[in-house]
Amino acid sequence: MPASEASTHAHAHTVERKDKDDLLKRLNRIGGQVEGIARMIAQDRYCVDVITQIGAVRSALDALGLKLLHDHAHGCVQHAVKSGEGDQAIEELMKVVERFTR
Amino acid sequence: MPASEASTHAHAHTVERKDKDDLLKRLNRIGGQVEGIARMIAQDRYCVDVITQIGAVRSALDALGLKLLHDHAHGCVQHAVKSGEGDQAIEELMKVVERFTR
Amino acid sequence: MPASEASTHAHAHTVERKDKDDLLKRLNRIGGQVEGIARMIAQDRYCVDVITQIGAVRSALDALGLKLLHDHAHGCVQHAVKSGEGDQAIEELMKVVERFTR
Amino acid sequence: MPASEASTHAHAHTVERKDKDDLLKRLNRIGGQVEGIARMIAQDRYCVDVITQIGAVRSALDALGLKLLHDHAHGCVQHAVKSGEGDQAIEELMKVVERFTR
Repeated sequence: MPASEASTHAHAHTVERKDKDDLLKRLNRIGGQVEGIARMIAQDRYCVDVITQIGAVRSALDALGLKLLHDHAHGCVQHAVKSGEGDQAIEELMKVVERFTR
Repeated sequence: MPASEASTHAHAHTVERKDKDDLLKRLNRIGGQVEGIARMIAQDRYCVDVITQIGAVRSALDALGLKLLHDHAHGCVQHAVKSGEGDQAIEELMKVVERFTR
Repeated sequence: MPASEASTHAHAHTVERKDKDDLLKRLNRIGGQVEGIARMIAQDRYCVDVITQIGAVRSALDALGLKLLHDHAHGCVQHAVKSGEGDQAIEELMKVVERFTR
Repeated sequence: MPASEASTHAHAHTVERKDKDDLLKRLNRIGGQVEGIARMIAQDRYCVDVITQIGAVRSALDALGLKLLHDHAHGCVQHAVKSGEGDQAIEELMKVVERFTR
């Protein structure tokens, strides 16, 4: 399993992620983008430019969410199925997916 | 397992669905809605009314897609994980989810 | 104005579309795709293949909805703004857009 | 026109927003939510909880984007149509809408 997908269960509901530094870097960059949008509003920048930036942050968040979902499905969900708790884990996964498709 | 979620594997890539009749009814209704939109266009109906109907069909398709995805995850994917082919099944599931989130 | 974008107001809430034949052809094709999905269900076809086809129909409907929205904004909405009824037309447009972004 | 919708054109591509303070407060809150997600990752929090929070930030950004789009359509676009530059403004609006529907 590649490092980026690996996840082990230290204890219930805690997940040690091998790519934690990369995730934190991405969140840091997203935080910077949000500050950038605030600056655009403070400077009375043109609506379309602001909305375009909001769309860019949304895409970055989507990509991050899908990455976590991917690792969760390969790690936690697969682990749960093997431990006989698959129905519950898959039900939970589907609820998250549903929220993400709206 | 409730009847609506049950799915058994007759052979690779074929899935016997207990709720086949319900799915066919829903698709039949969606087909009727599409014909209804064509009639609206033929009658020069107001754009917003046509677009609203298109949105309704899209929602019906989304609900159907999510239902199939749900049953697939509980049935095929869980089965694959138990058979040691989980990585492939989950990768495939995530690709479908990604397409559905755009 | 290219033929595909042209729309004139015969009377309130009726819109004569120059590209009516093209729209009807597209809807006819979408209706055929929905029937194809019903056949896939009847034949117990693999979930992922069915879901992929549902996604294709959804994309076709989205494209059609966006086309109608585009023509509506250029035609009806612009006409309404020039007639002093812009606020109402734009409010209605935004409601449609909001429904389409979910 | 309520204060929150008012927008006047200081000069091309600059927009004075009467609800600037409210927009900045919302962006500040979104920035805080992004930091909260980073803390969750740093603390190895459960995937589903992190993804749920990402979804919440995405919804907050969507609502902000739709608000700006709404004010833009009522303000800038309507102004442009009245100044005879409607086609260009509406084309631009539709491009933004298209990006937001994916």
